[in-house]
Amino acid sequence: MPGTVTVQVLLDLIGIAVGAAAGALTAVRFRMHYMGCLLLGLVTGIGGALTRDVLLGAVPPAALTDWRYLTAGLAPALLVQHFHPLLSRVESAIDLADAVWLGLFSVAGALKAVHLGVPPMTGVLLGVLTGIGGGVLRDVLVNRKPVVLTQEIYVFPALLGSLVVVVASVIGWSGAAAAVPGAVLCTAVRVLAIRRGWSGPMPVRHPDPSSG
Amino acid sequence: MPGTVTVQVLLDLIGIAVGAAAGALTAVRFRMHYMGCLLLGLVTGIGGALTRDVLLGAVPPAALTDWRYLTAGLAPALLVQHFHPLLSRVESAIDLADAVWLGLFSVAGALKAVHLGVPPMTGVLLGVLTGIGGGVLRDVLVNRKPVVLTQEIYVFPALLGSLVVVVASVIGWSGAAAAVPGAVLCTAVRVLAIRRGWSGPMPVRHPDPSSG
Amino acid sequence: MPGTVTVQVLLDLIGIAVGAAAGALTAVRFRMHYMGCLLLGLVTGIGGALTRDVLLGAVPPAALTDWRYLTAGLAPALLVQHFHPLLSRVESAIDLADAVWLGLFSVAGALKAVHLGVPPMTGVLLGVLTGIGGGVLRDVLVNRKPVVLTQEIYVFPALLGSLVVVVASVIGWSGAAAAVPGAVLCTAVRVLAIRRGWSGPMPVRHPDPSSG
Repeated sequence: MPGTVTVQVLLDLIGIAVGAAAGALTAVRFRMHYMGCLLLGLVTGIGGALTRDVLLGAVPPAALTDWRYLTAGLAPALLVQHFHPLLSRVESAIDLADAVWLGLFSVAGALKAVHLGVPPMTGVLLGVLTGIGGGVLRDVLVNRKPVVLTQEIYVFPALLGSLVVVVASVIGWSGAAAAVPGAVLCTAVRVLAIRRGWSGPMPVRHPDPSSG
Repeated sequence: MPGTVTVQVLLDLIGIAVGAAAGALTAVRFRMHYMGCLLLGLVTGIGGALTRDVLLGAVPPAALTDWRYLTAGLAPALLVQHFHPLLSRVESAIDLADAVWLGLFSVAGALKAVHLGVPPMTGVLLGVLTGIGGGVLRDVLVNRKPVVLTQEIYVFPALLGSLVVVVASVIGWSGAAAAVPGAVLCTAVRVLAIRRGWSGPMPVRHPDPSSG
Repeated sequence: MPGTVTVQVLLDLIGIAVGAAAGALTAVRFRMHYMGCLLLGLVTGIGGALTRDVLLGAVPPAALTDWRYLTAGLAPALLVQHFHPLLSRVESAIDLADAVWLGLFSVAGALKAVHLGVPPMTGVLLGVLTGIGGGVLRDVLVNRKPVVLTQEIYVFPALLGSLVVVVASVIGWSGAAAAVPGAVLCTAVRVLAIRRGWSGPMPVRHPDPSSG
């Protein structure tokens, strides 16, 4: 496997790099130290893939044994720490990075799950988990509620991207060929949701306002 | 395995459904969005079983590959989001659901561990971890201290339920037959602890009150 | 394996015991109940080793199946809860325990990874993860930002300790023989960092102070 750069590996690498950049930007905003930024970047970048591989029994995870994965997880944090002032609007940069990364990881997660022969439903779920896993770990580590649970329209695009890959593979098309359109669809829906302020449905209103 | 509903699977399914309902109720109280409720319900419901299966090497976990498990983890959140106002006293409903779920998962965890041939002590510990795992994940995700660490008499009933199953299997009785009494004992002790306000022992008093 | 106390097992046991004591002290400071202290001690003690073993596929982890590991994880919490007032300066005791434990676990993690034949870079990373894993879990469970991400000079000594073991094993020396100097180096650097108030480099200054 190491040495050959397949679609799977390429998606993983770009996803990890973008996730690591997003994690490092968050660390900078939370005024963490150098090593903290590096670690938070790495955990954010490889967190989703680690979770997926542990759940699928693909251990030790490639993200820990393949130097390309580790480089993709560490290098962005080094760059971000020095050059983030150049990113004039960090907030929107984080949002965009998050959206691209959500798309890449959702399809990469679904693709790997499908390749390992799990049922389609499991492939979709692992796609979603891989997509949001790194961000959830990042948010737990900076001690805030995961944005995926509180922000609107976050899980839905990850679900769409994973579905594209899984459906393509179920109906006999190439899951790998479906990865790029799946990732683009996911990222586009996420970006549109942010720009347009789309809001997901809420649970039925609570009768007792005092519990808020 | 899929197709045959054994005691193990039945306990898992009911436990997951009750846990998912408890998680979704928590999400509603924290005013999360629809997808957030769904995800928090799922994670709370299958979290304990996922942790157990990963630690035992039973991957990919049945909770991710068996459609019955996923249905049990997702359906309650859908119902809770629409009908929770009917539950007039949400707080006590959560407490009761938590107690039933603690009982079911503790014995289910201990049972699976024993079936896989781990030492008795490990079986008890995995029973406790399975019982409290989903709730701990839920609390970490809504960014509060896990109630299992701060509320009185929570781990103790899980320990009792697991012990019943493990002891029954060690002395040659059927662990599965001991599951129902074990779960009932655990739930009963937990409910009694809540109703009677039982309080566990505290560490020796701290001499320096300023650190509180 | 059980019955023979190798360097690996001995390092693990001492590391778990010290980690469990550190976790229990934290629980006492957060005014947790008896069972909470016990659980937080156990999770802090075995958390790093659990994470390492799950990532390496060494399941079920020895920390859950070997009675010596569980004893090392549970006994210190029992002692700490009764005798912690005797530790007149709890804060500095926690810091010292943390430093010793960081050293022991970093080298133990690197050693086990190297023995299982992972690449050197992975060995170093797993050493760091094992070293800081338990503390991160502890901090997540008491709902605060992990000190490893916010305090200065924490990851760096873990990196040093792991490097000593991995380099020794790569150049053909005995990794086990390098464990003690590696652990001492790590602990010494951590203690010096605390005493001297060493501070790690920060990311480039953020131009917008309003986001802090």
